Amino acid sequence: MPRYMLTIEYDGGPYCGWQRQDNGLSVQEVIETGLAGFTGEAPTIFGAGRTDAGVHATGQVAHVDLSREWEPDTVRDALNAHIRDEPVSIISAERVADDFDARFSARKRWYLYRIFNRRAPPAIDRGRVWWVSRNLDVAAMHEAAHVLVGTHDFNTFRSSHCQAKNPIRTLEELSVAKGPGEEVHIIAMAQSFLHNQIRSFAGTLKLVGEGRWTKDDVIAALESRDRTRCGPVAPPDGLYLTRVEYGDAPKRTLPAYEG
Amino acid sequence: MPRYMLTIEYDGGPYCGWQRQDNGLSVQEVIETGLAGFTGEAPTIFGAGRTDAGVHATGQVAHVDLSREWEPDTVRDALNAHIRDEPVSIISAERVADDFDARFSARKRWYLYRIFNRRAPPAIDRGRVWWVSRNLDVAAMHEAAHVLVGTHDFNTFRSSHCQAKNPIRTLEELSVAKGPGEEVHIIAMAQSFLHNQIRSFAGTLKLVGEGRWTKDDVIAALESRDRTRCGPVAPPDGLYLTRVEYGDAPKRTLPAYEG
Repeated sequence: MPRYMLTIEYDGGPYCGWQRQDNGLSVQEVIETGLAGFTGEAPTIFGAGRTDAGVHATGQVAHVDLSREWEPDTVRDALNAHIRDEPVSIISAERVADDFDARFSARKRWYLYRIFNRRAPPAIDRGRVWWVSRNLDVAAMHEAAHVLVGTHDFNTFRSSHCQAKNPIRTLEELSVAKGPGEEVHIIAMAQSFLHNQIRSFAGTLKLVGEGRWTKDDVIAALESRDRTRCGPVAPPDGLYLTRVEYGDAPKRTLPAYEG
Repeated sequence: MPRYMLTIEYDGGPYCGWQRQDNGLSVQEVIETGLAGFTGEAPTIFGAGRTDAGVHATGQVAHVDLSREWEPDTVRDALNAHIRDEPVSIISAERVADDFDARFSARKRWYLYRIFNRRAPPAIDRGRVWWVSRNLDVAAMHEAAHVLVGTHDFNTFRSSHCQAKNPIRTLEELSVAKGPGEEVHIIAMAQSFLHNQIRSFAGTLKLVGEGRWTKDDVIAALESRDRTRCGPVAPPDGLYLTRVEYGDAPKRTLPAYEG
Protein backbone atom coordinates (compact mmCIF):
# COMPACT_ATOMS: atom_id res chain seq x y z
CA MET A 1 0.00 0.00 0.00
CA PRO A 2 1.54 3.35 -0.96
CA ARG A 3 2.20 5.61 2.04
CA TYR A 4 1.62 9.35 2.00
CA MET A 5 2.86 12.08 4.33
CA LEU A 6 0.43 14.95 4.90
CA THR A 7 1.41 18.36 6.27
CA ILE A 8 -1.61 19.93 7.93
CA GLU A 9 -2.79 23.30 9.22
CA TYR A 10 -5.82 23.65 11.49
CA ASP A 11 -7.66 25.95 13.81
CA GLY A 12 -8.07 23.73 16.86
CA GLY A 13 -10.93 25.80 18.31
CA PRO A 14 -13.88 23.69 17.12
CA TYR A 15 -12.28 20.28 17.81
CA CYS A 16 -11.84 17.94 20.76
CA GLY A 17 -8.19 17.66 19.73
CA TRP A 18 -6.17 15.82 17.11
CA GLN A 19 -7.10 12.32 18.18
CA ARG A 20 -10.37 10.56 17.43
CA GLN A 21 -12.61 10.46 20.50
CA ASP A 22 -16.13 9.44 21.31
CA ASN A 23 -17.08 12.78 22.83
CA GLY A 24 -16.61 15.12 19.91
CA LEU A 25 -15.26 15.82 16.46
CA SER A 26 -11.48 15.54 16.13
CA VAL A 27 -9.12 16.76 13.43
CA GLN A 28 -8.21 13.13 12.75
CA GLU A 29 -11.85 12.27 12.07
CA VAL A 30 -12.26 15.28 9.75
CA ILE A 31 -9.31 14.14 7.64
CA GLU A 32 -10.22 10.44 7.71
CA THR A 33 -13.76 11.27 6.61
CA GLY A 34 -12.36 13.41 3.80
CA LEU A 35 -10.03 10.60 2.70
CA ALA A 36 -12.91 8.14 2.73
CA GLY A 37 -14.93 10.58 0.63
CA PHE A 38 -12.48 10.68 -2.20
CA THR A 39 -10.84 7.24 -2.07
CA GLY A 40 -13.84 5.12 -1.08
CA GLU A 41 -11.60 3.47 1.54
CA ALA A 42 -11.64 3.90 5.32
CA PRO A 43 -7.98 4.68 6.04
CA THR A 44 -6.52 5.47 9.47
CA ILE A 45 -4.08 8.38 9.74
CA PHE A 46 -1.25 8.67 12.27
CA GLY A 47 -0.21 12.12 13.49
CA ALA A 48 3.15 13.34 14.80
CA GLY A 49 1.62 15.28 17.67
CA ARG A 50 -1.59 14.50 19.51
CA THR A 51 -2.61 18.11 20.10
CA ASP A 52 -5.24 18.80 22.77
CA ALA A 53 -8.67 20.38 22.34
CA GLY A 54 -8.29 23.99 21.16
CA VAL A 55 -4.60 23.64 20.20
CA HIS A 56 -3.77 24.70 16.64
CA ALA A 57 -1.26 23.54 14.05
CA THR A 58 0.46 25.14 11.11
CA GLY A 59 2.70 22.14 10.48
CA GLN A 60 1.20 18.95 11.89
CA VAL A 61 2.41 15.87 10.02
CA ALA A 62 0.54 12.60 9.53
CA HIS A 63 0.98 9.48 7.46
CA VAL A 64 -1.63 7.33 5.79
CA ASP A 65 -1.64 4.24 3.58
CA LEU A 66 -3.90 4.24 0.54
CA SER A 67 -4.62 1.19 -1.58
CA ARG A 68 -3.69 2.78 -4.88
CA GLU A 69 -1.14 5.23 -6.22
CA TRP A 70 -2.40 8.79 -6.46
CA GLU A 71 -0.47 11.75 -7.73
CA PRO A 72 0.42 13.47 -4.38
CA ASP A 73 -0.97 16.86 -5.45
CA THR A 74 -4.24 15.10 -6.27
CA VAL A 75 -4.37 13.73 -2.73
CA ARG A 76 -3.83 17.26 -1.37
CA ASP A 77 -6.38 18.97 -3.63
CA ALA A 78 -9.08 16.28 -3.48
CA LEU A 79 -8.79 16.06 0.30
CA ASN A 80 -9.00 19.85 0.64
CA ALA A 81 -12.11 19.85 -1.53
CA HIS A 82 -13.74 17.21 0.69
CA ILE A 83 -12.97 19.05 3.97
CA ARG A 84 -13.61 22.56 2.70
CA ASP A 85 -16.27 23.32 5.31
CA GLU A 86 -13.81 22.69 8.15
CA PRO A 87 -10.92 24.95 9.27
CA VAL A 88 -8.44 22.19 8.37
CA SER A 89 -6.14 22.43 5.36
CA ILE A 90 -3.73 19.97 3.78
CA ILE A 91 -0.69 22.07 2.91
CA SER A 92 1.08 19.26 1.10
CA ALA A 93 0.95 15.55 0.38
CA GLU A 94 4.08 13.55 -0.44
CA ARG A 95 4.77 9.94 -1.28
CA VAL A 96 7.02 8.40 1.41
CA ALA A 97 8.74 5.11 2.15
CA ASP A 98 6.72 2.35 3.82
CA ASP A 99 8.76 2.57 7.02
CA PHE A 100 8.23 6.30 7.47
CA ASP A 101 6.16 6.88 10.59
CA ALA A 102 4.90 10.41 11.28
CA ARG A 103 4.98 9.84 15.01
CA PHE A 104 7.89 7.52 15.69
CA SER A 105 10.26 8.82 13.00
CA ALA A 106 9.97 12.41 14.29
CA ARG A 107 13.25 13.90 15.56
CA LYS A 108 12.21 17.46 16.40
CA ARG A 109 8.84 18.93 17.25
CA TRP A 110 8.53 22.71 17.17
CA TYR A 111 5.80 24.60 18.97
CA LEU A 112 4.91 28.28 19.13
CA TYR A 113 2.96 29.80 22.00
CA ARG A 114 1.42 33.19 21.14
CA ILE A 115 0.67 35.61 24.00
CA PHE A 116 -1.30 38.73 23.10
CA ASN A 117 -0.03 41.38 25.51
CA ARG A 118 -2.27 44.44 25.48
CA ARG A 119 -4.65 46.11 27.88
CA ALA A 120 -7.60 45.63 25.49
CA PRO A 121 -8.63 42.07 24.58
CA PRO A 122 -7.96 40.70 21.08
CA ALA A 123 -10.83 40.83 18.57
CA ILE A 124 -9.29 39.64 15.30
CA ASP A 125 -7.14 36.90 16.89
CA ARG A 126 -9.62 35.88 19.57
CA GLY A 127 -9.25 32.15 20.24
CA ARG A 128 -5.87 32.07 18.51
CA VAL A 129 -3.78 33.81 21.19
CA TRP A 130 -3.63 33.97 24.97
CA TRP A 131 -4.67 37.41 26.16
CA VAL A 132 -2.44 38.73 28.99
CA SER A 133 -3.31 42.33 29.85
CA ARG A 134 -0.43 43.13 32.23
CA ASN A 135 2.72 44.37 30.57
CA LEU A 136 5.23 41.51 30.34
CA ASP A 137 8.99 41.72 30.91
CA VAL A 138 10.07 39.69 27.89
CA ALA A 139 13.78 39.71 28.77
CA ALA A 140 13.05 38.27 32.22
CA MET A 141 10.86 35.57 30.65
CA HIS A 142 13.59 34.64 28.19
CA GLU A 143 16.19 34.41 30.93
CA ALA A 144 13.94 32.21 33.07
CA ALA A 145 13.09 30.02 30.06
CA HIS A 146 16.78 29.28 29.64
CA VAL A 147 16.99 27.42 32.96
CA LEU A 148 14.50 24.86 31.65
CA VAL A 149 16.55 23.99 28.57
CA GLY A 150 18.39 20.67 28.73
CA THR A 151 17.66 17.22 30.10
CA HIS A 152 15.50 17.33 33.22
CA ASP A 153 12.82 15.51 35.11
CA PHE A 154 9.89 17.71 34.05
CA ASN A 155 7.34 16.24 36.44
CA THR A 156 6.48 19.77 37.64
CA PHE A 157 5.52 20.79 34.13
CA ARG A 158 3.10 18.11 33.01
CA SER A 159 -0.55 17.31 33.36
CA SER A 160 -1.71 14.97 36.10
CA HIS A 161 -3.25 13.00 33.20
CA CYS A 162 0.10 12.59 31.46
CA GLN A 163 0.55 8.92 30.64
CA ALA A 164 4.30 8.96 29.99
CA LYS A 165 6.09 6.62 32.37
CA ASN A 166 9.27 8.62 32.23
CA PRO A 167 9.05 12.37 33.02
CA ILE A 168 12.60 13.00 31.80
CA ARG A 169 12.81 14.91 28.54
CA THR A 170 15.51 16.84 26.69
CA LEU A 171 14.27 20.33 25.93
CA GLU A 172 16.45 21.55 23.09
CA GLU A 173 15.06 25.05 22.80
CA LEU A 174 12.86 27.37 24.84
CA SER A 175 13.04 31.04 23.96
CA VAL A 176 10.86 34.08 24.50
CA ALA A 177 10.85 37.10 22.20
CA LYS A 178 8.66 39.98 21.03
CA GLY A 179 6.46 38.85 18.16
CA PRO A 180 4.69 41.05 15.61
CA GLY A 181 2.34 43.75 16.88
CA GLU A 182 1.59 43.26 20.56
CA GLU A 183 2.53 39.59 20.68
CA VAL A 184 5.07 37.77 22.81
CA HIS A 185 6.19 34.45 21.34
CA ILE A 186 7.48 31.42 23.19
CA ILE A 187 9.23 28.91 20.95
CA ALA A 188 9.86 25.37 22.16
CA MET A 189 11.58 22.43 20.51
CA ALA A 190 12.29 18.87 21.62
CA GLN A 191 12.06 15.39 20.17
CA SER A 192 9.01 14.85 22.37
CA PHE A 193 7.07 16.63 25.06
CA LEU A 194 5.01 15.60 28.07
CA HIS A 195 1.28 16.26 28.19
CA ASN A 196 0.62 19.99 28.80
CA GLN A 197 4.36 20.65 29.08
CA ILE A 198 4.46 23.75 26.87
CA ARG A 199 1.27 25.20 28.33
CA SER A 200 2.78 24.65 31.79
CA PHE A 201 5.91 26.50 30.68
CA ALA A 202 3.82 29.34 29.22
CA GLY A 203 1.74 29.74 32.40
CA THR A 204 4.87 29.75 34.53
CA LEU A 205 6.82 32.15 32.31
CA LYS A 206 3.86 34.55 32.32
CA LEU A 207 4.26 34.81 36.13
CA VAL A 208 7.90 35.75 35.56
CA GLY A 209 6.90 38.32 32.91
CA GLU A 210 4.47 39.91 35.35
CA GLY A 211 7.18 40.11 38.01
CA ARG A 212 5.38 37.70 40.33
CA TRP A 213 7.98 34.95 39.98
CA THR A 214 11.76 35.14 39.62
CA LYS A 215 14.08 32.89 37.68
CA ASP A 216 14.96 31.25 41.01
CA ASP A 217 11.30 30.38 41.57
CA VAL A 218 11.34 28.58 38.22
CA ILE A 219 14.50 26.67 39.19
CA ALA A 220 12.93 25.70 42.53
CA ALA A 221 9.72 24.55 40.79
CA LEU A 222 11.72 22.44 38.32
CA GLU A 223 13.85 20.89 41.05
CA SER A 224 10.84 20.10 43.24
CA ARG A 225 9.45 17.69 40.57
CA ASP A 226 6.12 18.52 42.16
CA ARG A 227 3.17 19.28 39.87
CA THR A 228 1.54 21.52 42.46
CA ARG A 229 4.53 23.89 42.16
CA CYS A 230 3.80 24.69 38.51
CA GLY A 231 2.29 28.03 37.50
CA PRO A 232 -1.27 27.89 36.14
CA VAL A 233 -1.45 25.96 32.87
CA ALA A 234 -1.93 28.42 29.98
CA PRO A 235 -5.02 27.99 27.76
CA PRO A 236 -4.81 26.01 24.50
CA ASP A 237 -5.71 29.08 22.40
CA GLY A 238 -2.12 30.30 22.05
CA LEU A 239 -0.46 26.97 21.22
CA TYR A 240 0.57 25.90 17.70
CA LEU A 241 2.39 22.81 16.48
CA THR A 242 4.44 24.56 13.81
CA ARG A 243 6.89 22.01 12.45
CA VAL A 244 8.01 18.40 12.69
CA GLU A 245 11.47 17.41 11.49
CA TYR A 246 12.56 13.93 10.53
CA GLY A 247 16.32 14.26 10.05
CA ASP A 248 17.63 11.11 8.39
CA ALA A 249 14.45 9.16 8.91
CA PRO A 250 13.23 7.46 5.75
CA LYS A 251 10.91 9.81 3.95
CA ARG A 252 11.36 10.48 0.28
CA THR A 253 13.28 7.42 -0.75
CA LEU A 254 10.80 6.62 -3.49
CA PRO A 255 10.96 8.26 -6.87
CA ALA A 256 8.33 10.85 -7.63
CA TYR A 257 5.11 9.52 -9.03
CA GLU A 258 5.29 9.66 -12.77
CA GLY A 259 1.76 9.58 -13.82
CA MET B 1 -21.68 66.61 27.21
CA PRO B 2 -18.10 65.31 27.26
CA ARG B 3 -17.06 63.73 23.96
CA TYR B 4 -14.92 60.60 23.72
CA MET B 5 -12.99 59.15 20.83
CA LEU B 6 -12.85 55.35 20.68
CA THR B 7 -10.32 53.34 18.67
CA ILE B 8 -11.82 49.97 17.84
CA GLU B 9 -10.74 46.54 16.56
CA TYR B 10 -13.25 44.00 15.29
CA ASP B 11 -13.66 40.78 13.37
CA GLY B 12 -16.36 41.78 10.90
CA GLY B 13 -17.34 38.16 10.15
CA PRO B 14 -20.39 37.87 12.42
CA TYR B 15 -21.81 41.33 11.68
CA CYS B 16 -23.97 43.00 9.04
CA GLY B 17 -21.37 45.79 8.95
CA TRP B 18 -20.44 48.79 11.05
CA GLN B 19 -23.73 50.59 10.74
CA ARG B 20 -26.90 49.76 12.64
CA GLN B 21 -29.42 47.98 10.42
CA ASP B 22 -32.74 46.27 10.85
CA ASN B 23 -31.60 43.00 9.29
CA GLY B 24 -28.81 41.96 11.63
CA LEU B 25 -26.39 42.77 14.41
CA SER B 26 -23.91 45.56 13.61
CA VAL B 27 -20.69 46.57 15.30
CA GLN B 28 -22.30 49.93 16.10
CA GLU B 29 -25.14 48.20 17.95
CA VAL B 30 -22.69 46.00 19.91
CA ILE B 31 -20.83 49.07 21.15
CA GLU B 32 -23.93 51.16 21.80
CA THR B 33 -25.45 48.31 23.80
CA GLY B 34 -22.21 48.02 25.77
CA LEU B 35 -22.18 51.77 26.46
CA ALA B 36 -25.81 51.64 27.59
CA GLY B 37 -24.91 48.76 29.89
CA PHE B 38 -22.32 50.67 31.82
CA THR B 39 -23.56 54.27 31.63
CA GLY B 40 -27.31 53.70 31.84
CA GLU B 41 -27.68 56.07 28.88
CA ALA B 42 -28.56 55.29 25.26
CA PRO B 43 -25.79 57.08 23.39
CA THR B 44 -25.30 57.07 19.62
CA ILE B 45 -21.78 56.53 18.25
CA PHE B 46 -20.45 57.90 14.97
CA GLY B 47 -17.79 55.93 13.09
CA ALA B 48 -15.09 57.15 10.69
CA GLY B 49 -15.69 54.35 8.21
CA ARG B 50 -18.95 52.53 7.53
CA THR B 51 -17.40 49.15 6.86
CA ASP B 52 -19.53 46.56 5.04
CA ALA B 53 -20.65 43.15 6.29
CA GLY B 54 -17.63 40.92 6.86
CA VAL B 55 -15.07 43.75 6.69
CA HIS B 56 -12.71 43.96 9.68
CA ALA B 57 -11.01 46.80 11.51
CA THR B 58 -7.87 47.16 13.58
CA GLY B 59 -8.17 50.94 13.84
CA GLN B 60 -11.77 52.08 13.35
CA VAL B 61 -12.46 55.38 15.12
CA ALA B 62 -15.77 56.58 16.54
CA HIS B 63 -16.93 59.41 18.76
CA VAL B 64 -19.65 59.43 21.38
CA ASP B 65 -21.04 61.97 23.83
CA LEU B 66 -21.66 60.82 27.38
CA SER B 67 -23.54 62.83 29.97
CA ARG B 68 -20.84 62.69 32.63
CA GLU B 69 -17.06 62.77 32.83
CA TRP B 70 -15.48 59.34 33.01
CA GLU B 71 -11.80 58.60 33.27
CA PRO B 72 -11.05 57.54 29.65
CA ASP B 73 -9.39 54.26 30.67
CA THR B 74 -12.53 53.45 32.64
CA VAL B 75 -14.62 53.94 29.50
CA ARG B 76 -12.30 51.55 27.62
CA ASP B 77 -12.19 48.88 30.34
CA ALA B 78 -15.88 49.01 31.32
CA LEU B 79 -16.97 48.90 27.70
CA ASN B 80 -14.67 45.95 26.96
CA ALA B 81 -16.11 44.12 29.96
CA HIS B 82 -19.66 44.68 28.67
CA ILE B 83 -18.90 43.46 25.13
CA ARG B 84 -16.58 40.61 26.10
CA ASP B 85 -18.69 37.96 24.35
CA GLU B 86 -18.31 39.73 20.99
CA PRO B 87 -15.16 39.89 18.79
CA VAL B 88 -15.06 43.66 19.22
CA SER B 89 -12.42 45.39 21.34
CA ILE B 90 -11.98 49.01 22.41
CA ILE B 91 -8.25 49.62 22.05
CA SER B 92 -8.37 53.10 23.56
CA ALA B 93 -10.74 55.82 24.71
CA GLU B 94 -9.71 59.47 24.79
CA ARG B 95 -11.40 62.69 25.79
CA VAL B 96 -11.71 64.99 22.76
CA ALA B 97 -12.99 68.46 21.92
CA ASP B 98 -16.71 68.93 21.29
CA ASP B 99 -16.17 69.74 17.62
CA PHE B 100 -14.14 66.59 16.89
CA ASP B 101 -16.12 64.40 14.51
CA ALA B 102 -14.81 60.89 13.83
CA ARG B 103 -16.27 60.90 10.33
CA PHE B 104 -16.07 64.48 9.09
CA SER B 105 -12.76 65.45 10.76
CA ALA B 106 -10.94 62.45 9.21
CA ARG B 107 -8.11 63.41 6.84
CA LYS B 108 -6.66 60.01 5.92
CA ARG B 109 -8.24 56.59 5.97
CA TRP B 110 -5.88 53.61 5.68
CA TYR B 111 -7.01 50.18 4.58
CA LEU B 112 -5.20 46.86 4.26
CA TYR B 113 -6.37 44.10 1.95
CA ARG B 114 -4.88 40.68 2.83
CA ILE B 115 -4.62 38.08 0.06
CA PHE B 116 -3.60 34.57 1.13
CA ASN B 117 -1.70 33.19 -1.85
CA ARG B 118 -1.15 29.45 -1.52
CA ARG B 119 -2.38 26.34 -3.27
CA ALA B 120 -3.98 25.01 -0.05
CA PRO B 121 -6.77 27.04 1.55
CA PRO B 122 -6.17 28.91 4.82
CA ALA B 123 -7.27 27.19 8.04
CA ILE B 124 -6.04 29.48 10.82
CA ASP B 125 -6.91 32.74 9.00
CA ARG B 126 -10.07 31.51 7.33
CA GLY B 127 -12.53 34.41 7.04
CA ARG B 128 -9.79 36.94 7.64
CA VAL B 129 -7.99 36.76 4.27
CA TRP B 130 -8.95 36.26 0.62
CA TRP B 131 -7.66 32.92 -0.59
CA VAL B 132 -6.15 33.09 -4.09
CA SER B 133 -4.60 29.79 -5.10
CA ARG B 134 -2.84 30.83 -8.31
CA ASN B 135 0.63 32.25 -7.84
CA LEU B 136 0.48 36.05 -8.04
CA ASP B 137 3.00 38.35 -9.73
CA VAL B 138 3.29 40.92 -6.95
CA ALA B 139 5.55 43.29 -8.92
CA ALA B 140 3.05 43.44 -11.79
CA MET B 141 0.24 44.13 -9.32
CA HIS B 142 2.21 46.94 -7.70
CA GLU B 143 2.98 48.51 -11.05
CA ALA B 144 -0.67 48.35 -12.13
CA ALA B 145 -1.78 49.77 -8.77
CA HIS B 146 0.34 52.83 -9.38
CA VAL B 147 -1.78 53.93 -12.37
CA LEU B 148 -4.79 54.28 -10.06
CA VAL B 149 -3.05 56.67 -7.66
CA GLY B 150 -4.07 60.32 -7.97
CA THR B 151 -7.30 62.20 -8.64
CA HIS B 152 -9.63 60.28 -10.95
CA ASP B 153 -13.24 59.58 -11.71
CA PHE B 154 -13.42 56.14 -10.09
CA ASN B 155 -16.85 55.20 -11.40
CA THR B 156 -15.45 51.91 -12.70
CA PHE B 157 -14.35 50.93 -9.21
CA ARG B 158 -17.45 51.40 -7.09
CA SER B 159 -20.58 49.49 -6.22
CA SER B 160 -23.74 50.08 -8.19
CA HIS B 161 -25.24 50.86 -4.76
CA CYS B 162 -22.72 53.63 -4.08
CA GLN B 163 -24.63 56.71 -2.99
CA ALA B 164 -21.87 59.29 -3.51
CA LYS B 165 -22.94 61.90 -6.06
CA ASN B 166 -19.39 62.60 -7.09
CA PRO B 167 -17.28 59.62 -8.21
CA ILE B 168 -14.07 61.67 -8.20
CA ARG B 169 -11.64 60.83 -5.42
CA THR B 170 -7.99 61.45 -4.71
CA LEU B 171 -6.25 58.14 -4.04
CA GLU B 172 -3.08 59.06 -2.16
CA GLU B 173 -1.60 55.58 -1.89
CA LEU B 174 -2.17 52.18 -3.43
CA SER B 175 0.68 49.71 -3.11
CA VAL B 176 1.09 45.96 -3.32
CA ALA B 177 3.81 44.03 -1.50
CA LYS B 178 4.61 40.61 -0.09
CA GLY B 179 3.22 40.30 3.43
CA PRO B 180 4.27 37.81 6.11
CA GLY B 181 4.11 34.09 5.29
CA GLU B 182 2.17 33.50 2.10
CA GLU B 183 0.30 36.80 2.15
CA VAL B 184 0.16 39.58 -0.43
CA HIS B 185 -0.85 42.93 1.02
CA ILE B 186 -2.59 45.80 -0.75
CA ILE B 187 -2.39 49.09 1.15
CA ALA B 188 -4.72 51.95 0.24
CA MET B 189 -5.01 55.46 1.63
CA ALA B 190 -7.26 58.42 0.79
CA GLN B 191 -9.30 60.97 2.65
CA SER B 192 -12.39 59.07 1.57
CA PHE B 193 -13.34 56.11 -0.61
CA LEU B 194 -16.33 55.14 -2.70
CA HIS B 195 -18.47 52.14 -1.76
CA ASN B 196 -16.59 48.89 -2.58
CA GLN B 197 -13.70 50.89 -4.05
CA ILE B 198 -10.87 48.95 -2.37
CA ARG B 199 -12.51 45.57 -2.95
CA SER B 200 -12.91 46.56 -6.63
CA PHE B 201 -9.21 47.44 -6.75
CA ALA B 202 -8.29 44.13 -5.07
CA GLY B 203 -10.38 42.07 -7.50
CA THR B 204 -8.90 43.90 -10.48
CA LEU B 205 -5.29 43.72 -9.25
CA LYS B 206 -5.71 39.99 -8.66
CA LEU B 207 -6.42 39.60 -12.41
CA VAL B 208 -3.15 41.42 -13.08
CA GLY B 209 -1.30 39.20 -10.59
CA GLU B 210 -2.62 36.11 -12.35
CA GLY B 211 -1.45 37.46 -15.72
CA ARG B 212 -5.00 37.72 -17.06
CA TRP B 213 -4.96 41.53 -17.19
CA THR B 214 -2.14 43.96 -18.00
CA LYS B 215 -1.49 47.41 -16.60
CA ASP B 216 -3.00 48.79 -19.83
CA ASP B 217 -6.24 46.90 -19.15
CA VAL B 218 -6.41 48.65 -15.78
CA ILE B 219 -5.86 52.04 -17.44
CA ALA B 220 -8.57 51.29 -20.00
CA ALA B 221 -10.98 50.21 -17.25
CA LEU B 222 -10.31 53.39 -15.25
CA GLU B 223 -10.73 55.61 -18.28
CA SER B 224 -13.96 53.90 -19.34
CA ARG B 225 -15.72 55.06 -16.12
CA ASP B 226 -17.88 52.00 -16.71
CA ARG B 227 -18.67 49.73 -13.75
CA THR B 228 -19.05 46.70 -15.98
CA ARG B 229 -15.35 47.03 -16.88
CA CYS B 230 -14.21 46.40 -13.30
CA GLY B 231 -12.69 43.06 -12.29
CA PRO B 232 -14.79 40.93 -9.89
CA VAL B 233 -15.21 42.62 -6.51
CA ALA B 234 -13.02 40.87 -3.93
CA PRO B 235 -14.73 39.37 -0.85
CA PRO B 236 -14.93 41.36 2.39
CA ASP B 237 -12.85 38.76 4.29
CA GLY B 238 -9.49 40.32 3.39
CA LEU B 239 -10.35 43.97 4.06
CA TYR B 240 -9.28 45.87 7.20
CA LEU B 241 -9.76 49.51 8.18
CA THR B 242 -6.39 49.93 9.88
CA ARG B 243 -6.02 53.62 10.74
CA VAL B 244 -7.77 56.96 10.59
CA GLU B 245 -5.73 60.15 10.79
CA TYR B 246 -7.03 63.54 11.80
CA GLY B 247 -4.12 65.88 11.05
CA ASP B 248 -4.84 69.28 12.56
CA ALA B 249 -8.47 68.49 13.26
CA PRO B 250 -9.47 69.28 16.85
CA LYS B 251 -8.90 66.23 18.94
CA ARG B 252 -7.01 66.46 22.18
CA THR B 253 -7.43 70.15 22.96
CA LEU B 254 -8.84 69.38 26.38
CA PRO B 255 -6.61 68.74 29.38
CA ALA B 256 -6.46 65.15 30.55
CA TYR B 257 -9.11 64.13 32.99
CA GLU B 258 -7.75 64.60 36.47
CA GLY B 259 -10.05 62.47 38.42
